[in-house]
Amino acid sequence: MSTAAPILLTPGPLTTSTRTRQAMMMDWGSWDGDFNEMTASLRERLLAIINGQDSHYCVPLQGSGTFAVEAAIGTLVPRNGKVLVLVNGAYGQRLAKICSVLGRAYSTFETAEDQPTTADDVDRLLTEDRDITHVALIHCETSTGILNPLQAISKVVASHGKRLIIDAMSSFGALPIDARELQFDALVAASGKCLEGVPGMGFVFANKQTLDQAQGNSHSLAMDLHDQNSYMAKTGQWRFTPPTHVVAALHEALLQYAEEGGLPARHQRYAQNCKTLLDGMSAMGLSSFIPADIQAPIIVTFHAPDSPNYRFKDFYERVKAKGFILYPGKLTQVETFRVGCIGCVDSRGMQGAVDAIGQALREMQAI
Amino acid sequence: MSTAAPILLTPGPLTTSTRTRQAMMMDWGSWDGDFNEMTASLRERLLAIINGQDSHYCVPLQGSGTFAVEAAIGTLVPRNGKVLVLVNGAYGQRLAKICSVLGRAYSTFETAEDQPTTADDVDRLLTEDRDITHVALIHCETSTGILNPLQAISKVVASHGKRLIIDAMSSFGALPIDARELQFDALVAASGKCLEGVPGMGFVFANKQTLDQAQGNSHSLAMDLHDQNSYMAKTGQWRFTPPTHVVAALHEALLQYAEEGGLPARHQRYAQNCKTLLDGMSAMGLSSFIPADIQAPIIVTFHAPDSPNYRFKDFYERVKAKGFILYPGKLTQVETFRVGCIGCVDSRGMQGAVDAIGQALREMQAI
Ligand SMILES: Cc1ncc(COP(=O)(O)O)c(C=O)c1O
Ligand SMILES: Cc1ncc(COP(=O)(O)O)c(C=O)c1O
Repeated sequence: MSTAAPILLTPGPLTTSTRTRQAMMMDWGSWDGDFNEMTASLRERLLAIINGQDSHYCVPLQGSGTFAVEAAIGTLVPRNGKVLVLVNGAYGQRLAKICSVLGRAYSTFETAEDQPTTADDVDRLLTEDRDITHVALIHCETSTGILNPLQAISKVVASHGKRLIIDAMSSFGALPIDARELQFDALVAASGKCLEGVPGMGFVFANKQTLDQAQGNSHSLAMDLHDQNSYMAKTGQWRFTPPTHVVAALHEALLQYAEEGGLPARHQRYAQNCKTLLDGMSAMGLSSFIPADIQAPIIVTFHAPDSPNYRFKDFYERVKAKGFILYPGKLTQVETFRVGCIGCVDSRGMQGAVDAIGQALREMQAI
Repeated sequence: MSTAAPILLTPGPLTTSTRTRQAMMMDWGSWDGDFNEMTASLRERLLAIINGQDSHYCVPLQGSGTFAVEAAIGTLVPRNGKVLVLVNGAYGQRLAKICSVLGRAYSTFETAEDQPTTADDVDRLLTEDRDITHVALIHCETSTGILNPLQAISKVVASHGKRLIIDAMSSFGALPIDARELQFDALVAASGKCLEGVPGMGFVFANKQTLDQAQGNSHSLAMDLHDQNSYMAKTGQWRFTPPTHVVAALHEALLQYAEEGGLPARHQRYAQNCKTLLDGMSAMGLSSFIPADIQAPIIVTFHAPDSPNYRFKDFYERVKAKGFILYPGKLTQVETFRVGCIGCVDSRGMQGAVDAIGQALREMQAI
């Protein structure tokens, strides 16, 4: 896999293929038929990943992932709705913050950062508070790498007749989600994550009936997914200027995704990356924060070495000099750092990162 | 100037230089020091264009230009403010729509699409309605190409002690705006216009005092410019994942902007493009919709040929086959089409477009 150095082991932006970046070497007119075809093809390919052609619209949106999450909540939760937000990390907290800023009623259920919410919790919470209309959760909580039990939770939410909003930003495309098996009003992801495009657009899979009835809900013009979708249906165009080069890169990345073997192949490569990483780090005496059975093969949080010589900034710069960009930890109580398993990297590349990390820590006399 | 064919004569996305696109061939970590330096340099370079270093912050925002306009209104107009929106085209109407969706009180003053609002109008309107706190206008109304008298209007607004919000999307970087001479709370533009970057981010020059006092105004988390700015001041980073490749392209475009000679040179090149276009079209018997003295050298609206053989779609495809992408008209009453003067194109390229247009119309026997 050809990549531009250094290799990003961060959970988006991440390392993209040369071919994906090469797709940005051309300028596209956003009103032009060729570009409209690309948008249509992109939406179809995205829908196919979740088998959502019959049940959901794929609504792309300019901006980062958070914009798409906010757009989903603002458009799909009626103004008199109430959202139960499941929190075990920073992105769950952000969901709650969005509800708060948008003035949607909400309550949170918070578990420890190494503790998934369970379906039983959700069952109890929905029984206790009948005002709740929507449940919102993070599939893979990227702030630690923990995987929440989406399938089980979605069953409980559906059995209560409530609506589900899933932030699958860092898992979509790598971990299976099937719209024919899972009921949800919205599933949100973005271009620069497991699909290995460049950052600059998000997309929301929105339940067709729900979105069709969502006119006038949105607090925002730019983030109104109902308007975005109707305009696209009518004209084939984006409502406002699309990030044309980002769209072209994502489209090219989706072609490569299919060529690689789609979701199973992507999943397997990342799982292999994750295993190489965990094995290598464990051999160095570095342990991961999340127990193996709830660790998503997306990003791993490691405890910093227990040494007075360790300083993250120094460590980061040394590993960077060897060609790899790591990610800081996001925990407040324990000193950690994170290593992403996603992007255009295979397990040989990941072994290179493990070696670089080992070398850096030895240089620092931190292991 | 090297460009990827076809040449876009559209008001953004537009034709960029190979060098600008080449800057997207590398992946950047959004947490990394190198990327933060690029963001800082980009903000400084943008501020320098308006001499705004002392008076304004430059707050970049993910998304299209409309996102930045909405963010400016949502963040800078207090919830009990009232906006006078000056309208003579589609983008002015969009300003009003944003106020309406955001629930900000507003009134509109509408003139014909070939008629600028005057400073006298604004003076009268501000005298009549004391509740107005803000005036919002479009500098160059891209839906026709008309230039509104920003300087004179800003004086009147300031003399009434009111605040000004300027959508300079299609003029910024090409038409002079000096923050030392003009008082405004917000000036909004985007990456993919006269700076000749690729689309995917906007930016708002926000008056420092006003923005510092704007905490809690915003209707949106993602579009809160106060939060975006404070976070950037504290960390050097974007609050949410930036469109890294779009940022890198804009930075590279800004280097070329400086090398070309900054605003005067950019202005002159576009003015020359506009002259070449107007002269050539006039020689073909095609007349422009906007009188010459209020025509901005950004985009020109032409009356369609008065011939039963003319159909825009056919015309468009023929000109495209010759290597140029045009833009449809945006007027409801008269049949028009538009030709942009902006992008990485010089008057030789523009002459090529004129020739292609002439050929196409002759093929169609429409002139
Ligand atoms: C689970 C999750 N949600 C939301 C986001 C926010 O996305 P963005 O930074 O693109 O706004 C991220 C980003 O990594 C994420 O991992
Ligand atoms: C004057 C003006 N305002 C706003 C916009 C909207 O920008 P965007 O399409 O990037 O949302 C444009 C786009 O051309 C414009 O010309």
